[in-house]
Amino acid sequence: MIHMPSNNKTNQGNFMKKKKSLSIINKLNKLVYNSTFVYPLVIKGGQGCYIEDVDGERYLDFTSNIASCPLGYSHPELNEIIKRYVGIGAHKIAGQDFYCEEHSQLAEKLLSISNSNSKVFFINSGAEAVENAIKIAYRRNGPLPGISCINAFHGRTLGALAFTFSKEVQKTNFPEFPTKRIKFCITNNDPEIDTIQKIVNENKISFIITELVQGEGGVNVASKKFINNLNKASRKYDIPLIIDEVQTGLGRTGKWWTYQHYDIKPNIVTIGKALQVGAVIFDKKMEPHKPGVLSSTWGGGNRIDMAIGMKTIDIISKEKLLERVNKSGDFLKKNLMELKNRHNIIIDVRGLGLMLGVEFLKKEIRDKIIYKLFKNKLLVIPSGLKTIRILPPLIITENEISKGVIIFEKILKEFKH
Amino acid sequence: MIHMPSNNKTNQGNFMKKKKSLSIINKLNKLVYNSTFVYPLVIKGGQGCYIEDVDGERYLDFTSNIASCPLGYSHPELNEIIKRYVGIGAHKIAGQDFYCEEHSQLAEKLLSISNSNSKVFFINSGAEAVENAIKIAYRRNGPLPGISCINAFHGRTLGALAFTFSKEVQKTNFPEFPTKRIKFCITNNDPEIDTIQKIVNENKISFIITELVQGEGGVNVASKKFINNLNKASRKYDIPLIIDEVQTGLGRTGKWWTYQHYDIKPNIVTIGKALQVGAVIFDKKMEPHKPGVLSSTWGGGNRIDMAIGMKTIDIISKEKLLERVNKSGDFLKKNLMELKNRHNIIIDVRGLGLMLGVEFLKKEIRDKIIYKLFKNKLLVIPSGLKTIRILPPLIITENEISKGVIIFEKILKEFKH
Repeated sequence: MIHMPSNNKTNQGNFMKKKKSLSIINKLNKLVYNSTFVYPLVIKGGQGCYIEDVDGERYLDFTSNIASCPLGYSHPELNEIIKRYVGIGAHKIAGQDFYCEEHSQLAEKLLSISNSNSKVFFINSGAEAVENAIKIAYRRNGPLPGISCINAFHGRTLGALAFTFSKEVQKTNFPEFPTKRIKFCITNNDPEIDTIQKIVNENKISFIITELVQGEGGVNVASKKFINNLNKASRKYDIPLIIDEVQTGLGRTGKWWTYQHYDIKPNIVTIGKALQVGAVIFDKKMEPHKPGVLSSTWGGGNRIDMAIGMKTIDIISKEKLLERVNKSGDFLKKNLMELKNRHNIIIDVRGLGLMLGVEFLKKEIRDKIIYKLFKNKLLVIPSGLKTIRILPPLIITENEISKGVIIFEKILKEFKH
Repeated sequence: MIHMPSNNKTNQGNFMKKKKSLSIINKLNKLVYNSTFVYPLVIKGGQGCYIEDVDGERYLDFTSNIASCPLGYSHPELNEIIKRYVGIGAHKIAGQDFYCEEHSQLAEKLLSISNSNSKVFFINSGAEAVENAIKIAYRRNGPLPGISCINAFHGRTLGALAFTFSKEVQKTNFPEFPTKRIKFCITNNDPEIDTIQKIVNENKISFIITELVQGEGGVNVASKKFINNLNKASRKYDIPLIIDEVQTGLGRTGKWWTYQHYDIKPNIVTIGKALQVGAVIFDKKMEPHKPGVLSSTWGGGNRIDMAIGMKTIDIISKEKLLERVNKSGDFLKKNLMELKNRHNIIIDVRGLGLMLGVEFLKKEIRDKIIYKLFKNKLLVIPSGLKTIRILPPLIITENEISKGVIIFEKILKEFKH
C-alpha cells in the first residue's frame, strides 16, 4: 500500500543496536519480495497503544497496523478469545463448504450494526471483499463498465485493482476491466461535482464504487454533495452504489460506518482490517439468485479471526468507543492544526474521527519526517504523495495523543535546522 | 467451490435430533449468502482424523477441510502454537508494511523445500496466491493472453477466475481477461497433447497456468507428456509456467510438490490450503524490479497462520509423512478399486497420493452417496460433475482408511436396493 525509499537507512544510527531486528530484516530481504515496508520495525507484541519490537523497544502506535488493530494490543478480552482456540483443534476451516458457529455469530453481530434487510458474505481480505462486492454487482448487471474515483484505492487483486487509481507502480502492465473515472470531490463547489449525472445518463454502468475518506489516496474526505450526487444517480438509474469501508468501517471515523456521516444507505458495503476478516454487506435484493456464485475455501472459516472481529464490535459498543473516537479525534485534530499554525512545512490537516492526514510541502519532507518519528518511537504511515496518515487505536487517551504530538513537534522543530 | 442440491434435506431423518446444529444453520440461512455448503455439518473441533460437530457427533474426515487441515485436528504441536499467541497481543499485523519474525521463518522453511534460487510472497488465500502469480507474469510480459486448461479451477477473485473453466455458475456475467483455453490432457496419446506448440507459436502469451491434479475439475491427473509439452513451450518461448499447487502442495500427493512427479522446475508456483496462508514462490529472475508492485495489508502478517504453516512443514518432515502418504494413498486406492470392481455404479477411480477421485455413473447417484456417507459419519466432497473427491489428513492410518472403506461399501450396497 505504501512505500518509503528509506530502507537503505536501516544501518544508520542507533538502529545498529537492534541486533535481532536487523537479522530478521536482512533474512527477509533475501527471501521475500520487497513489498511496501515502511521502516525497519519488527513487531513482537504490544500493550494498549504501544507496540513492542523484537529487541524490546516500545513505540507509540498512531497506525493501528493500518487500522487492523483498532483496540490496540493485548486487550484482555481478545487474549481470552485466542485462549479458547488452544485445544479446539480446528481453528481454520473450509467455511463456505462446512458451517461453524463463529460464522453465524459474526454475521448476526455485524448485521445488527448495518442497514436493515441486509445479508453478508465473509471472505479473507479487504481486496477480496471488494472483489465480491463488484461480483455481486456484475452478476446483476453484466460486465458493463464500473465507475470509480481518481486516487481511489480498492485493493490489489486484479478485479479490485481495475478500480484503483492511486499509484502507477500498483497498475503498470496489468490487464484492465472497463471503467469510467470521475474526480473524487472534496468540496461542495467543485466544478466536476455533477459529472456523475452525465456519465450515467450516457452510459450503461454496472456499479459505482467509492471510498468516503480515501485512505491510500491521501486522507481525502468526500464532500457531502458529491456523495449525495452518487447516491442519487445510483437510485435514479438502479445502479448499485458500493461504499468501500475496508479502512473506514467499525468506528474509525466516529460512527460504525462512515456512510452514516453522509445520510445515505448504500446497496453494498465492504469491510476488512478492523473486522479481522473481509466482508461484503449487501441489500437482500442484490443477492445472487443461485447458490455457489460466490465462494472461497476459508471465507467464513477463519474462526479465530471471526471471533476476534465479533468481540471487537462488542467492545466498541461496551466501552462506548464511538463517542470516544469523536472526542479524541477532535482533540488530535485541534493539536495537529496547532502544529500546522506553528510549522509552515505542514500545508493541510484533514480527516474524520481518528483517521487524520497531515499534508506537507513536499514528498521528501514527508518521508524524512516519517522516518524521524519512527526513530523517536512514534509510528505513522504515508498516504498519497506527501501526506502522513494517522490512524491511532480507537482506545487512545488524550494523554497518549499529547505524548505523540510532543514527539511530532520535536521533529518538526528539528527539521527547520 | 462445490455445491450439493441436498440442503433441503437438512430437516430429514435423525438430523432433527441435532438441535444446536439446526439452530446455527437456520440462522446462517437467514443472514449469509448461501455459498457452496455441502451438507449440514457444524464443526466444533476434532481429534486426529475425526471431526466433532456442535452436537457432539463424530465424523471420520476424508476431506481435511478441503485440504486445509493436512495434520487432522488437535495435533499437540499445533495446539502449542496457538497457546504462544494468547498473551502476545498482536496476532495479525500489517505484514507487508511492518515486519514480524514468523514472516522470515515461514519464508525460510518454505523455500528450503522449494526450487533453489527462489523468492516468496505471502498473501491471504489461494485465490490471492494465483492473483499474485499472474501479476508477476503480467508485470514481466504485459497484459497479453494467458493460457489455461478446460476444467481448471484457479480461484474466485476476478483475475484468477478469468483462468478458471470449471462450472458455469462460477463465471456467469463476470468480465474476462484475454485467455486461450487448451484441453487438460490426462493420457499421453491424447490427440490434443501438442496444441500448446501451435498456440505459443502463433500468439504472444503472458503465461501458462495449470494444475497438475485438477481438484475442483474432477480429480484429473495430467499426463506426463502434456506437462512436459507445456514446460518445453515455456522454456522455448520464455513464457512463465505457473503451476497452481494451492490444493496439491505440501505433501498431498506424496511429494512436497506435485510437480516433482513430473520432473519439471516451474518458474512460478502457488500454494494455499495446507500452508494456512497463500503464497507465490517464484524464480528470482521473475521478481518485479521495483518494490511496491505487489502488496496486501495482511500478507505476511497472519502470524498464527504463518506459524502453524511453518510447523506443518516441520511435522511433515519429522513424522516422515511423505512416505506415509505414498503408502496410505496406495492402500486407499487399492481398496477403492476393489469397490469399483464390486459396484458398477462406480466407473473410475483415479488420483495421486492422498488426493483421490471416485467417479460415478451419474451426478444424481454421486450426490445421494455423498449425503448417505455423511449420515453414516464419513465426510467426502464432490468434484467435477459426478466424482467424489477424497482428501484425508496426511496422518491417516490404514485402520482408519479401512473404517472409511467399510462405510463406503455399506452405502454402495444400500444403494442397489
